[in-house]
Amino acid sequence: MSTKYVYKFSEGNRDMRELLGGKGANLAEMTNAGMPVPQGFTVTTEACTRYYTDGKKIAPEIEAEIMTNLADLEALMGKKFGDPENPLLVSVRSGARASMPGMMDTILNLGLNDVAVEGLARRTNNPRFAYDSYRRFIQMFSDVVMELSKKRFEEIIDDVKAKKGVKLDVELDADDMKQLVVLFKEFYKKEKGVDFPQDPKVQLMEAVKAVFRSWDNPRANVYRRMNEIPYDWGTAVNVQSMVFGNSGDNSGTGVAFTRNPATGEKALFGEYLINAQGEDVVAGVRTPSPISKLHEEMPHVYEEFVDIANKLEQHYKDMQDMEFTIEDGKLYMLQTRNGKRTAAAALKVAVDLVDEGMIDEKEAVLRVEPKQLDSLLHPTFDAEALKKAEVIGKGLAASPGAASGKVVFTAEEAKEWHQRGEKVILVRLETSPEDIEGMQVSQGILTVRGGMTSHAAVVARGMGTCCVSGCGDIVVDYENKQFTLAGKTYKEGDWISIDGSTGNIYGESVATVPADPSSGPFGRFMAWADKYRQLQVYTNADTPRDAKQAVDFGAEGIGLVRTEHMFFEGERIKAIREMIVAETTEEREKALEKLLPYQQGDFEGIYEAMEGRPVVIRYLDPPLHEFLPTKEEDIKEIAGELKITVDRLKEVIASLHEFNPMMGHRGCRLAVSYPEIARMQTTAVINAAVNVQKKHPDWKMVPEIMIPLVGEVKELKFVKDIVVATADAIIANSGIAMKYEVGTMIEIPRAALLADEIAKEAEFFSFGTNDLTQLTFGFSRDDAGKFLSYYYDQKIYENDPFAHLDQNGVGKLVAMAAKMGKETRPTIHMGICGEHGGDPTSVEFCHKVGLTYVSCSPFRVPIARLAAAQAAIKNPR
Amino acid sequence: MSTKYVYKFSEGNRDMRELLGGKGANLAEMTNAGMPVPQGFTVTTEACTRYYTDGKKIAPEIEAEIMTNLADLEALMGKKFGDPENPLLVSVRSGARASMPGMMDTILNLGLNDVAVEGLARRTNNPRFAYDSYRRFIQMFSDVVMELSKKRFEEIIDDVKAKKGVKLDVELDADDMKQLVVLFKEFYKKEKGVDFPQDPKVQLMEAVKAVFRSWDNPRANVYRRMNEIPYDWGTAVNVQSMVFGNSGDNSGTGVAFTRNPATGEKALFGEYLINAQGEDVVAGVRTPSPISKLHEEMPHVYEEFVDIANKLEQHYKDMQDMEFTIEDGKLYMLQTRNGKRTAAAALKVAVDLVDEGMIDEKEAVLRVEPKQLDSLLHPTFDAEALKKAEVIGKGLAASPGAASGKVVFTAEEAKEWHQRGEKVILVRLETSPEDIEGMQVSQGILTVRGGMTSHAAVVARGMGTCCVSGCGDIVVDYENKQFTLAGKTYKEGDWISIDGSTGNIYGESVATVPADPSSGPFGRFMAWADKYRQLQVYTNADTPRDAKQAVDFGAEGIGLVRTEHMFFEGERIKAIREMIVAETTEEREKALEKLLPYQQGDFEGIYEAMEGRPVVIRYLDPPLHEFLPTKEEDIKEIAGELKITVDRLKEVIASLHEFNPMMGHRGCRLAVSYPEIARMQTTAVINAAVNVQKKHPDWKMVPEIMIPLVGEVKELKFVKDIVVATADAIIANSGIAMKYEVGTMIEIPRAALLADEIAKEAEFFSFGTNDLTQLTFGFSRDDAGKFLSYYYDQKIYENDPFAHLDQNGVGKLVAMAAKMGKETRPTIHMGICGEHGGDPTSVEFCHKVGLTYVSCSPFRVPIARLAAAQAAIKNPR
Repeated sequence: MSTKYVYKFSEGNRDMRELLGGKGANLAEMTNAGMPVPQGFTVTTEACTRYYTDGKKIAPEIEAEIMTNLADLEALMGKKFGDPENPLLVSVRSGARASMPGMMDTILNLGLNDVAVEGLARRTNNPRFAYDSYRRFIQMFSDVVMELSKKRFEEIIDDVKAKKGVKLDVELDADDMKQLVVLFKEFYKKEKGVDFPQDPKVQLMEAVKAVFRSWDNPRANVYRRMNEIPYDWGTAVNVQSMVFGNSGDNSGTGVAFTRNPATGEKALFGEYLINAQGEDVVAGVRTPSPISKLHEEMPHVYEEFVDIANKLEQHYKDMQDMEFTIEDGKLYMLQTRNGKRTAAAALKVAVDLVDEGMIDEKEAVLRVEPKQLDSLLHPTFDAEALKKAEVIGKGLAASPGAASGKVVFTAEEAKEWHQRGEKVILVRLETSPEDIEGMQVSQGILTVRGGMTSHAAVVARGMGTCCVSGCGDIVVDYENKQFTLAGKTYKEGDWISIDGSTGNIYGESVATVPADPSSGPFGRFMAWADKYRQLQVYTNADTPRDAKQAVDFGAEGIGLVRTEHMFFEGERIKAIREMIVAETTEEREKALEKLLPYQQGDFEGIYEAMEGRPVVIRYLDPPLHEFLPTKEEDIKEIAGELKITVDRLKEVIASLHEFNPMMGHRGCRLAVSYPEIARMQTTAVINAAVNVQKKHPDWKMVPEIMIPLVGEVKELKFVKDIVVATADAIIANSGIAMKYEVGTMIEIPRAALLADEIAKEAEFFSFGTNDLTQLTFGFSRDDAGKFLSYYYDQKIYENDPFAHLDQNGVGKLVAMAAKMGKETRPTIHMGICGEHGGDPTSVEFCHKVGLTYVSCSPFRVPIARLAAAQAAIKNPR
Repeated sequence: MSTKYVYKFSEGNRDMRELLGGKGANLAEMTNAGMPVPQGFTVTTEACTRYYTDGKKIAPEIEAEIMTNLADLEALMGKKFGDPENPLLVSVRSGARASMPGMMDTILNLGLNDVAVEGLARRTNNPRFAYDSYRRFIQMFSDVVMELSKKRFEEIIDDVKAKKGVKLDVELDADDMKQLVVLFKEFYKKEKGVDFPQDPKVQLMEAVKAVFRSWDNPRANVYRRMNEIPYDWGTAVNVQSMVFGNSGDNSGTGVAFTRNPATGEKALFGEYLINAQGEDVVAGVRTPSPISKLHEEMPHVYEEFVDIANKLEQHYKDMQDMEFTIEDGKLYMLQTRNGKRTAAAALKVAVDLVDEGMIDEKEAVLRVEPKQLDSLLHPTFDAEALKKAEVIGKGLAASPGAASGKVVFTAEEAKEWHQRGEKVILVRLETSPEDIEGMQVSQGILTVRGGMTSHAAVVARGMGTCCVSGCGDIVVDYENKQFTLAGKTYKEGDWISIDGSTGNIYGESVATVPADPSSGPFGRFMAWADKYRQLQVYTNADTPRDAKQAVDFGAEGIGLVRTEHMFFEGERIKAIREMIVAETTEEREKALEKLLPYQQGDFEGIYEAMEGRPVVIRYLDPPLHEFLPTKEEDIKEIAGELKITVDRLKEVIASLHEFNPMMGHRGCRLAVSYPEIARMQTTAVINAAVNVQKKHPDWKMVPEIMIPLVGEVKELKFVKDIVVATADAIIANSGIAMKYEVGTMIEIPRAALLADEIAKEAEFFSFGTNDLTQLTFGFSRDDAGKFLSYYYDQKIYENDPFAHLDQNGVGKLVAMAAKMGKETRPTIHMGICGEHGGDPTSVEFCHKVGLTYVSCSPFRVPIARLAAAQAAIKNPR
């Protein structure tokens, strides 16, 4: 049987999201539920991938299938493409498996031509509307299909308005619109060398291709990379008969959520515009009315809509985000989907749905995107500082959080300033999908136009970035890079602050305080996550302060203390430099002797902060040259401090030079060369643990010592022997009993390949997936940036493997090693301590391969807890 | 049952070499064959490894077992340890599984003390002999067991001789010897604080321990690393009742080979000394008589020896290397083993043994150490140059080959000069095991003393280094770093030449010519190797000259053409620099256009040289910064050449800087960034192949294009698509049909892990085990030298993984990838092109994992052919 590439709405259902995209599947589902949906059909995602494998061509059989379905639609609607009496008009919209709002292209009013426009005028008895629709279609088609910028058409409109002496579009009459159509078509022909296509079927096929093409546009690629959407999913195309929200004052269009997407409050939440097309709401050009006002303006429509909204929420058992259009008083549903929401809203909705008996705890845990929790952990304004700060304006509280930064006016500037290390607030009339990268690097986003569902608001919420939208009092002067608000002028570079939870704007920098995630339903929700997860969540922390912070966020231990981070301050760096320039073991030991008390004190502090929880301490890891100066003047100064000649210091620096430091004399290789380093570190760890154990007899101290960069069991054994000899002697003298463990990082491919042997000596494994990724891919993290952009462009790699664990390659090594390690030593405990430890998809992988814990930075601990819970629910062990 | 740690000679046999060591197993075998062997017992290699695992202690049960066997030996010999009438004396010698001549320690005359010496004097009626033996024993025991240098004792002897007014040891009489014993014991007590041990059992146990310890001495470690002998094998200890070659003029000692170890000629070959102990021969202190002279001096002994020698050769079916001692006219066999031999001798012996019907072809193939062939391929002196060169002296032709170099007098200097890039000839009175590293880096070795079996001769033959030994005319003046010969003085740094095949010495540098391995039995022997091997042998060659050379050595194709090697000359480097500094694709293409004719011409030359054999061409691999200058003055000059500003060039250099260039922007990453490079290279490859195909219609040209540094199938696909599009277009225009293949290097761990996917696109794999080793171990070849020495010291790694493939780790990846590659594409062909391709153990591994070919440098081709044959014979597929 040949593949079916086109489905009528009446043929699909919600489970066909992979094939029909989210929009298509839900349109089908609503159709089947008897809801008022303008009918149409969906060209599948498979047609899209076929389009690309066929060299960006639509195969004849797919075109034939589209035409058959078009004919059926004509029959169903009783309208015909290009019909001079009753023309069928359609919208053509993208709809991928995952929602990618604003990322791809849409064309409305398709089917209009010189003949059909007359039919539309006649049927609606509204020539101005008909010609307005036609000129809009020409504009949109030219932009999306033919890459003729919308702006050029706006200039023609401005010309016509100027000649007529009017300022607003609404002041143009039917004849003006007719004239615009003529001018647009002339312009089109001039630019493209051919007439604007009059055959609606040609228009349709070109539009379908344009939607397929838009899957691969730059902003879609950026969005996918940010949201981990695979390139090979492709997008579906929905062809739907048009209904017109702009056909008069008894028409309108709007979007609404069944609950408040910012707070989660259970109440219909949305906006609409009378006499407008859908894009007018989303684009934020006009500021719409709240949905509650519809109750007054069109009570019957409102009631029908409330009824549908409730049904949809009950049906999907989640908060819905719906688009609707009212045509001549009749309601049509254009889309429903699970609504995007803030983290706070996500938590509240999930907990409320459980309390309402709609879903169970496990389902609730699955409902919150782990990465979203990040925004809950971000600072808010300091209450005292806020009292003194003057509110200079107010907009919509579009995305919660508080931010201070310097004003910039374009996404490009935001990126540039950010690269210089500046914090910026991006101030725009309105944002558009092109701005996405600039938005990402901004502390906050402030817009003049647009509501809660405007592009700026939707995207900022998704990013967890604070946003105030629709502050119409602001007058932006892009040219002079300044804006005025409340009589004051703010120039590029001036500090402002915005509060995305209140909509307040401050003309100065305002101090912030850390987030308090324990307020609201956070605690209850995270307790469910902790109940279902099987992975433990540790943190990477080098100081008691970080350790404390992580415990507050729910960390159950420390998976990585980087001991070298303690070596860089004051007297310590001096001592480590003395060690490095030492010419004999004795001199080296003398220098290490000086480091011992610092190191021991640091460990005691961390042990105290962790109150008996597990702490894994990694031994000295970086190459020694990192501790030496490189600049001439520093070399002179430091040679003086070390009481050696400049030449001698330069000699040492030269002798430590490495061609590929990442693969150089570091990690346990240092301990093999200079066992006295491992001896000192062991003394510090065990002394600290003994002291803390004596002070807190109820804690059960079991220091865990981690040997980095092991590639061979004999290497581990060599260092372990030093550790054991040193530790056993100290413990024997301490007068108390204490156990300790010696384990290793698995971060060298060879260690993973020989994990069975290494597990003979290692009591635990910690997968160092940063280095393991570098070595498995054979590219240096510091250098890969230069060529990875080409790889993203060519879709060779879709994700940064340092952000998301490469499950195919690196993951294969991790899985192999975990399996072999367990076979050799069934009691082995295993974790991950690379940056992947806080990445949800990587956490899921760690769960699947049976690790014991993940370790991540303190602020990612809640994310990891939730990701671990979701992994456990989705993949029962 | 508990382990048996001690075996009497009568309990063992030749198959117990792993347990008893080579020497012990063969002593047992000779004992069982009824040959005259002084009886004794062997402490096993397992006792040695136990000694180390027990913390360098001999366990009580092992000591007990030694004592039991000692008692049995006493009973067998009718002598008793320390007996005042008839004392048992023994030798204590090491004997590992593999022969390690001179690497470990030996003690003779053990059992002598103040009482036993009297018994020996009485029984032999030769007090001088008895006390001479005692003082030798004290000296040897002090040196080997107590680390008191022999030299200090020699000084005491010199004192005594001076006081007496004599010059030679033989001028000392019995009383002098007695006095020496007293002085030696006094010195011992002064140095060690205790009396010289009088209990022979204590002496024995200390000696056994000393032998075990000597397994771990630095020179043994170096030797093992050179000869790939695992540290964990350990050594056995042979305790054998003494016979005395130095008990008078009816006694003697010698060593002999059943065939000539230099030429393979079938004739007894050896040397002996009358009235001497074995060490006197090997140490090269006195120059011995040829074995044929024994026929005149002791005809009966000679006949018995010849008879035994023949029996041993028949028994072991190989040329034997034997040690013997004559005590009062009676012959004793002290050792037999398969004799070390030169490559020429190895070939001749192997071929002769087949002709004599003693072994078959396969066995013959196994009899030659592949690495040895190297020496056959090394140059000899140019005949014309030789005519003009003056022979200034003559020594023994101890190890064949010809060498010119500058004179140095110590092993340390040899190393230093070598590091400076100088070629040196090491001139020594005699060499000792401490000199081994210096010998290794020398072009040749010239000694004043010592015969064909002296340390210098044996070791040089093993290394394939040319050596002239025993040139007694030379007067060495170490102090002034000079020697005189034939009235002339040669200082350190002066050029000399030596011919290890004739023994001639020349006082100047003499030109050499390449080896002609096809002379002698080489051709016949290699034909057998080719008959039995299953791996194909390719070569790595970048020029027609190298290609030709390799074909002469038997290469069947080129496994690696490094295209970048062609980019470094004259106009080429200019064009590639233009490409690098290009700011647009167009500029880059213009520069590449200039490179195209060069590259195409090179490929045509190589294709012509290979006459239709397979040629695998690797695309541009190194990071581009390798083509740019680093020095200020060069930058200025080159900026001028390129007609760009110095600042612009510096900018490009800075932009190309990498932290870890090994893991940087190189390999196929260049082709992904700049597809035009791959396009140019493809054009050159295919144009060249088409031209050569047209010129030689009988050759079947199938160019093989190899994409380096692939880590992901999409990456390979991307570059392959460029190659295919370019190649197909050229072939279509060429008017002839031609196939080509596109394959990849497997040199990134991820490529090996995902070889199943990569094989979907790759028509062949070539394992680049140099980079694969770097990435799998996580150490950079350029930097690892600094810390690997610690690893060798600690026995963490025993071999350089860049010389011998790490079969456990890297090999696991290779085996996995080979298996997966074949599963995806059963027709895939696979080879190796790292330096391991010419290493015999690595070649065996390649055979075992089922590769199609190995590729190595031209001079290693014969080695690889033989190694492949041995692998096939040992591991039938």
